[in-house]
Amino acid sequence: MTGSVGGGDAYVIGVDFGTLSARALVVRVSDGAEAGTAVTEYPHGVIDRSLADGAHSRVELPPDWALQDPADYIVALGEAVPAAVRDAGIDPGQVIGIATDFTASTCMPVLADGTPLCQLPGLAARPHAYPKLWKHHAAQPHADRINAVAHERGEKWIGRYGGKISSEWQFAKALQLLDEDPGLYQRADRWIEAADWIIWQLCGTETRNACTAGYKGVFQDGGYPSREYLAALDPRFAGFADDKLAHPISPLGARAGALTPAAAALTGLPEGIAVAIGNVDAHVTVPAAGPVAPGKMVAIMGTSTCHVMNGAELAEVPGMCGVVDGGIVAGLWGYEAGQSGVGDIFAWFTANGVPGEFAEEARRRGLPLPQLLDEKAAAQPPGAHGLIALDWENGNRSVLVDAGLSGAIVGLTLTTTAPEIYRALLEATAFGTRLIIETFNASGVPVTEFVVAGGLVKSAPLMQVYADVIRRPLSVIGSGQAPALGSAIHAAVAAGAYPDVPAAAAVMGRIERDVYQPDAARAEVYDELYAEYVRLHDYFGRGANEVMYRLRAIRDRALSGRGAAR
Amino acid sequence: MTGSVGGGDAYVIGVDFGTLSARALVVRVSDGAEAGTAVTEYPHGVIDRSLADGAHSRVELPPDWALQDPADYIVALGEAVPAAVRDAGIDPGQVIGIATDFTASTCMPVLADGTPLCQLPGLAARPHAYPKLWKHHAAQPHADRINAVAHERGEKWIGRYGGKISSEWQFAKALQLLDEDPGLYQRADRWIEAADWIIWQLCGTETRNACTAGYKGVFQDGGYPSREYLAALDPRFAGFADDKLAHPISPLGARAGALTPAAAALTGLPEGIAVAIGNVDAHVTVPAAGPVAPGKMVAIMGTSTCHVMNGAELAEVPGMCGVVDGGIVAGLWGYEAGQSGVGDIFAWFTANGVPGEFAEEARRRGLPLPQLLDEKAAAQPPGAHGLIALDWENGNRSVLVDAGLSGAIVGLTLTTTAPEIYRALLEATAFGTRLIIETFNASGVPVTEFVVAGGLVKSAPLMQVYADVIRRPLSVIGSGQAPALGSAIHAAVAAGAYPDVPAAAAVMGRIERDVYQPDAARAEVYDELYAEYVRLHDYFGRGANEVMYRLRAIRDRALSGRGAAR
Repeated sequence: MTGSVGGGDAYVIGVDFGTLSARALVVRVSDGAEAGTAVTEYPHGVIDRSLADGAHSRVELPPDWALQDPADYIVALGEAVPAAVRDAGIDPGQVIGIATDFTASTCMPVLADGTPLCQLPGLAARPHAYPKLWKHHAAQPHADRINAVAHERGEKWIGRYGGKISSEWQFAKALQLLDEDPGLYQRADRWIEAADWIIWQLCGTETRNACTAGYKGVFQDGGYPSREYLAALDPRFAGFADDKLAHPISPLGARAGALTPAAAALTGLPEGIAVAIGNVDAHVTVPAAGPVAPGKMVAIMGTSTCHVMNGAELAEVPGMCGVVDGGIVAGLWGYEAGQSGVGDIFAWFTANGVPGEFAEEARRRGLPLPQLLDEKAAAQPPGAHGLIALDWENGNRSVLVDAGLSGAIVGLTLTTTAPEIYRALLEATAFGTRLIIETFNASGVPVTEFVVAGGLVKSAPLMQVYADVIRRPLSVIGSGQAPALGSAIHAAVAAGAYPDVPAAAAVMGRIERDVYQPDAARAEVYDELYAEYVRLHDYFGRGANEVMYRLRAIRDRALSGRGAAR
Repeated sequence: MTGSVGGGDAYVIGVDFGTLSARALVVRVSDGAEAGTAVTEYPHGVIDRSLADGAHSRVELPPDWALQDPADYIVALGEAVPAAVRDAGIDPGQVIGIATDFTASTCMPVLADGTPLCQLPGLAARPHAYPKLWKHHAAQPHADRINAVAHERGEKWIGRYGGKISSEWQFAKALQLLDEDPGLYQRADRWIEAADWIIWQLCGTETRNACTAGYKGVFQDGGYPSREYLAALDPRFAGFADDKLAHPISPLGARAGALTPAAAALTGLPEGIAVAIGNVDAHVTVPAAGPVAPGKMVAIMGTSTCHVMNGAELAEVPGMCGVVDGGIVAGLWGYEAGQSGVGDIFAWFTANGVPGEFAEEARRRGLPLPQLLDEKAAAQPPGAHGLIALDWENGNRSVLVDAGLSGAIVGLTLTTTAPEIYRALLEATAFGTRLIIETFNASGVPVTEFVVAGGLVKSAPLMQVYADVIRRPLSVIGSGQAPALGSAIHAAVAAGAYPDVPAAAAVMGRIERDVYQPDAARAEVYDELYAEYVRLHDYFGRGANEVMYRLRAIRDRALSGRGAAR
């Protein structure tokens, strides 16, 4: 282990590229202590209405589009990293490595030298020239085609993604580019994840990480989907993988290269230090939770929840997002599942379903409204609200993998209050998590430990509901910026300070074990409510009554002025 | 027709005894013109917490109890009638008759001379000595027993009440009295509706009207349930009908007697004028809508909705509240159905589900919040909210007859707003009405005209939703106090000014025809949504998933601190 540099402690930098900002964290190599941090907002944020700002001519974007400007990533790198080093009060010369993690799949067309097409003269007004952010949802028809053809042809990889490739992923977004702007598709030498593109900017060479290649790029058993399959999607698409993706896949924690002079100038870090292979924000969090072990599920709970876990064996778990060899840690199978709405649902209800008296009380008591609602939720005995909710206001990612579903509440009476509905929504997300855990258990990939991270961890009432509902203790990652810490751990490995990620995680990761303990009496009531949840989940989610799809279709026609179906 | 009295126009008085107040209306006999009105609140309102006020010693009431003080009815009569006459600016000598209508079943134990037991020395602190208001719901176990025994014995009358006698009705409330205060049961010479008791106070003789006897007293085919049936409920109950109910049944609009000197002194009306047989507030409204005809359904829409309609034939319509020979107008079969929550649901949501920004906007624009929500609901294209709701927050009266059901909302997304949910709730009640209409149509009692009355009629957006959903024009009763007008029509008949109620209704009733017209395009969208409503209605309401009952049971255990079932 390299614990010191020229007499001082050695440090690494982790940079977590989120949806709206990037956070840099300075971490001591010897023990994972967090020395300093800084956040930079992206100047253009999420581009979802028009390409209008700065030098762009105004181009309106269709619904469901979400783009970013790659120049923002560089701006954030150049501001947040030096600021974090200053905040840490260390000499930049003490930094021995840098690693990053990114939202995914956020992917873009670039030239052979890595230049984003949107930065080429004359292409600034072409929407398809920009990175498509993970939540760009306009490629659903392309995802539908990808899935239909995969099932028709019996492609064996489709089973590793719960039977469905998401519209958020690389192939759907690239196919949309080909369909809608074929000239631009031709000009793209490479199609690359932002997670890998940022590494290219740091070390000057293209790399491809095992995590995004596997989860977002359908890389399985040493290869991408076949030319024949791709040609069946569109003859012009036959060479997509060979021409625009193919590249050796690097294991997580590997050294991508040395920090270039240009990147050193940008970040204020020493030229030549180690740059780690790219990572994804959710998966990189697992080592931040300390010792890496199969069965340790890490739930990153924010606007949505991502469940990541290593397993010793390959299994096909119904409705998960994906299973990838070395997708989280080299040498283990990495499993990912998710809930597409969690904190987003609570925020939606807080903004749209809570009468003014509660906002008034929160103001009077100097509390944020969500905290007041948490308090009022916690005061209710389980089951006293008489409600059951389905947590599908943003669709269902696992285990149904269905964006066409929607939320439901059953059991309303004239005495039902907003804090009761709020609690029912908290519980619904916990029931969703329990269903995911039970599905893993039933598929031969047992969950043996449950660790929570992310912004929602600060809600103790919510955490207690989860512990009671899943009937397990909850452990908490001991860092407020777990993804950046996870990245820093990868930087330490890439710099050679530790032999591998598990070794670094065991020292630099931090977990507070069993912070929330289930209560047997409450858990028994939740068992009954969970049975109701599952019954409604299956009724609305497995085809018995496709009312939710029909309501969406009616809504879409109404909004487009097309009236009734007949 | 008696159009004048001593040179001046002749007038009649209708008095509508509601839940919280009584309204007197002075109406011209010759044309139904409303000359004056006055309202008196009951001093004790609804007694649902304790017998505590005035001379009563403090006795706490159990949950679900709702009593009234009969002295309040006399107070209201003595204040509202003279005030209405003054408001009309007529000479009391011009009044030729008085009639009343009442909530039902509001019933009480009295002595053979009509004295309420609660007015006897020493009984003021005995809850069972008071009138049990229609919404007294503590006799549910007794209603359950009544229904179980009726079905066991194959009593044929049970089919005329949708298969279920309500806990709100005479037999359940009397059986509760017997069970819980048998001594008081023995002291009660008579068990009488407030609708009939008030007539006794006006004309000095006991009468029983066909409407409450049939709908609330299970009087069918010339008799009450048999001694054998009553003995099967409780041997001490065998003589209940013979001893405490039996009395000739009078047709609606008949003359009950002459105003007594005491009642004349109380009301300021001439001694000896005609007093009509008692009426029920919903049913009495039908003649206020003008010409009486089979198939003309009158919906009295307020906190709940009551649907009343005459039919030429006897049929058993599934899930209605009751069918009674002459129950609305002598010579026709009177059908009653209902929705147990309508305005109550809108009020609940307005108070509990609407964020402060809307209350703020309403304040700024000087509008009541419900009116603002109506406006925002009306602005949405049908179906654009993507929602479907079940209107069972207060249970379902027709056609499921099930107080154990509860409300549900399906189709929620992160973009759903409170005004959208509000609109879905408006629509849900309209779908409930459509289902009632379709059930009547399918049972051989066709609905040919739809007339609305009651407090909700003033919401034009709601009325338009109803017209579009039921695909029929809506006619509106041309009076803001339709029940009192209906009573006045009965007074005119009792006074001999018209040969019968239909003749009086044709002249004195008022209807504005086809005020709201269905729109074909909107109706087509609603057809689709209605199909979804029916599917969910049957799933939750007809036994496929009894989740709503289980949620209630879980809730009741949680609130009583008894935890889970196991």
